Amino acid sequence: MEEKFVKEITPRSEDFAQWYVDVILKGELADYSPVRGCMVIRPYGYAIWENIQKLLDKRFKDTGHKNAYFPVFIPESLLKKEAEHVEGFAPEVAWVTHGGQEELAERIAVRPTSETIICSMYAKWIKSYRDLPVLINQWCNVVRWEKSTKPFLRTAEFLWQEGHTAHRTEEDAEEETLRMLEVYRDFVESELSIPVIKGRKSENEKFAGALRTYTIEALMSDGRALQAGTSHNLGQHFSKVFDIQFLDQDGQLKYVWQTSWGVSTRLIGAIIMTHGDDRGLKLPPKIAPIQVIIVPIFGQKKDLVLNKAKEIYELLKNEFRVELDDRDEYTPGWKFNEWEMKGVPIRLEIGPKDIENKQVVVVRRDTFEKNIVAEENAVEYIKNLLNDIQKNMFEQAQKFREENTRVALNFEELKNIIENYRGFVKAMWCGNGDCEKHIKEQTGATLRCIPFEQEKLSDKCVVCGKEAQKMVYFAKSY
Amino acid sequence: MEEKFVKEITPRSEDFAQWYVDVILKGELADYSPVRGCMVIRPYGYAIWENIQKLLDKRFKDTGHKNAYFPVFIPESLLKKEAEHVEGFAPEVAWVTHGGQEELAERIAVRPTSETIICSMYAKWIKSYRDLPVLINQWCNVVRWEKSTKPFLRTAEFLWQEGHTAHRTEEDAEEETLRMLEVYRDFVESELSIPVIKGRKSENEKFAGALRTYTIEALMSDGRALQAGTSHNLGQHFSKVFDIQFLDQDGQLKYVWQTSWGVSTRLIGAIIMTHGDDRGLKLPPKIAPIQVIIVPIFGQKKDLVLNKAKEIYELLKNEFRVELDDRDEYTPGWKFNEWEMKGVPIRLEIGPKDIENKQVVVVRRDTFEKNIVAEENAVEYIKNLLNDIQKNMFEQAQKFREENTRVALNFEELKNIIENYRGFVKAMWCGNGDCEKHIKEQTGATLRCIPFEQEKLSDKCVVCGKEAQKMVYFAKSY
Ligand SMILES: [Zn+2]
Ligand SMILES: [Zn+2]
Repeated sequence: MEEKFVKEITPRSEDFAQWYVDVILKGELADYSPVRGCMVIRPYGYAIWENIQKLLDKRFKDTGHKNAYFPVFIPESLLKKEAEHVEGFAPEVAWVTHGGQEELAERIAVRPTSETIICSMYAKWIKSYRDLPVLINQWCNVVRWEKSTKPFLRTAEFLWQEGHTAHRTEEDAEEETLRMLEVYRDFVESELSIPVIKGRKSENEKFAGALRTYTIEALMSDGRALQAGTSHNLGQHFSKVFDIQFLDQDGQLKYVWQTSWGVSTRLIGAIIMTHGDDRGLKLPPKIAPIQVIIVPIFGQKKDLVLNKAKEIYELLKNEFRVELDDRDEYTPGWKFNEWEMKGVPIRLEIGPKDIENKQVVVVRRDTFEKNIVAEENAVEYIKNLLNDIQKNMFEQAQKFREENTRVALNFEELKNIIENYRGFVKAMWCGNGDCEKHIKEQTGATLRCIPFEQEKLSDKCVVCGKEAQKMVYFAKSY
Repeated sequence: MEEKFVKEITPRSEDFAQWYVDVILKGELADYSPVRGCMVIRPYGYAIWENIQKLLDKRFKDTGHKNAYFPVFIPESLLKKEAEHVEGFAPEVAWVTHGGQEELAERIAVRPTSETIICSMYAKWIKSYRDLPVLINQWCNVVRWEKSTKPFLRTAEFLWQEGHTAHRTEEDAEEETLRMLEVYRDFVESELSIPVIKGRKSENEKFAGALRTYTIEALMSDGRALQAGTSHNLGQHFSKVFDIQFLDQDGQLKYVWQTSWGVSTRLIGAIIMTHGDDRGLKLPPKIAPIQVIIVPIFGQKKDLVLNKAKEIYELLKNEFRVELDDRDEYTPGWKFNEWEMKGVPIRLEIGPKDIENKQVVVVRRDTFEKNIVAEENAVEYIKNLLNDIQKNMFEQAQKFREENTRVALNFEELKNIIENYRGFVKAMWCGNGDCEKHIKEQTGATLRCIPFEQEKLSDKCVVCGKEAQKMVYFAKSY
């Protein structure tokens, strides 16, 4: 029976894409919907998102941000105001043309992102330097009509948060942009156990309408990179178009400096693909909806074991997110597989012999290590173990990334690595967008970021051989 | 200066609708947007919604519900499956017809409510009686293309939660429907200090597609009723159309019994119109974003007072949602008005004399009562005072409702009350929808609910004089 269960998930080595979908569908994280490209986030998947929201929202508020809500609809004329912006988003906009029986005079976009609608309000609200900074965040759904979709990674609709801030000076805006990038890095590394590289996007890869885009880039276990969060310094691009001016202390009317930044439900995809294995999902304790699953092993003493299991549940429930699987219709082995597939960090087994010995059996999802723990020490033991698991998962992911980060000194090396190994390729770059495009066309890899942490690998651009400006990361990506 | 400030809000007696809009705009709860009928919920208004969400979400989870997320889009064919449902919603649907450059093969509705898309998934997920009950809630935006709109009360887009559950038996579904109605009643009365009448909707007023709709009805301070929350027993209307069947313990395939229930951002409108006065908003402490505002009165001793004010802020901030208004550019009087307008339940003043006497001045927003409190007792005093304010606001609203609930024994009396007094009218009803429609046409009042708490006012229907079945409430409403 156990064997059969495990077989339901395609091994990663056989077909990574199918493994990914299997984990999502069979782990009940999400499901396909009758709407093209849209997914349903099921309760188990949504609980992960709720934990992400709770932890991130606290960080946003601790850095002075407040939440608000702007309309899901953006009139076409508004979306079109900033030229680069509309060019970037127009191809994937869903258009509302009718309200009830009536045809609308102007088409309305379902928001792909909210810069334009928010700027139109900031123009109204911001009058004086005293009104600055404006530090607003929004949790909402957005729509991008993508051709090909994949649950959590690329869907026609997804959930995200978008921060939108306005500042008095360029320096203030840049500081905010980097502050939020650091909030993302710390969150993703500390709470999701995913190591990331902080850096700047190239001109080709930056956000449509931004002055500069910063990113945190993660490496998935199939060797493809994933952009986990971005923070944009918008400069005065939008404030000039939307006429967001303030009277400064010196009596001059000035345009504000703006930022925007966001992460989305694709973080759940990143969790799956960073930590998962052939048994399924592996969740970092800090965002796991269930941190400890108690599986009673009844033997011949069902009442005794069930009562003890309930007692232990009561003992743990104020400290941890814990559940007791007391279902009759499944064997313990089946339950073990189910909860491993669902990525619960700790399994606690309790049977007649354990009760006799005043002990519980504790099994880690990350290493499958099994330990016998005195019942009286269970709370303390689990507390420490959850921290260990959180840390170990980060270290494992970091080790994988290091092993899959390679240096290329010339184009042939780069091409060879991408074709035969995937992973990150570190290479020197002259700063010319044509060299970047050449790599994309020839290998499918894109310039993921210009990392803050620079190394000098050589003097020459990996493509054109001209003088190199920066060390950059290339990779195939999601 | 103070006088000028107060004048910014239109008095309720002069123009209630304008007063309502003034409170919202000047209190910075919300703003008009460039999108027809859509509003922006500003940080101060959104913080009220976040408090509502937090408190309600806990109640939902305590009653066994889990959150999930379903697509914002619903294909036209799906929306049309349940006949009554589509008839009720089609006139106000926003239709997406284009994705990027492409015209869609089938029009897609922006969800006005999610029964149909959720049912299509439940049909996939529910197989056995062991899968029941399914208890799912969703927090999201919905769109109804209304002709005339009013912030929080009726907007093209609004935020809400919608619970959708599936059960094994009719009794289970009815129990759930009433359980969630009671959750709403208790929440609205305890946390929002708004008294409500629990009852059932008439056939004319029930939800499109429901078997039975239950409601909680509140009375606004202009004498109009407001439906604050509804809970629907959907029967098997949707399960038969969407083929949601389960294999019961007896080996028979059966259709599930369903419920749905929701409250929305219109609760914020209810708070404004139940409690507000000519100075502006009055917020119940439990959902006030700021419970205590500290206003330092510098006199000649700015540093001394500011330091003490900060000290008190530190003292209070772990117990309450507190802010310190240390702005230089406004006088204390201006600040008093501002925070009264924004409905902060308690104002704490501190000046040089207070510091000398080791005291603070505490002013209630609900009664304007002013008390001097020893600094060392401040935390305890405020804790009790917030409870008192919460309770007093409920009692005031209840008193108003009682004074504005009248009995009509015949149609002339009913018409006279609606025309000259508004408020609730209690009257006997034969149960015939024609009598209900007659009242609506002649007076503009609708049958708000058939209350659970019945009284026998007479034997005869207030319209036709035939045998009365039930005592019901009529009112003009939002
Ligand atoms: Zn080059
Ligand atoms: Zn009648």
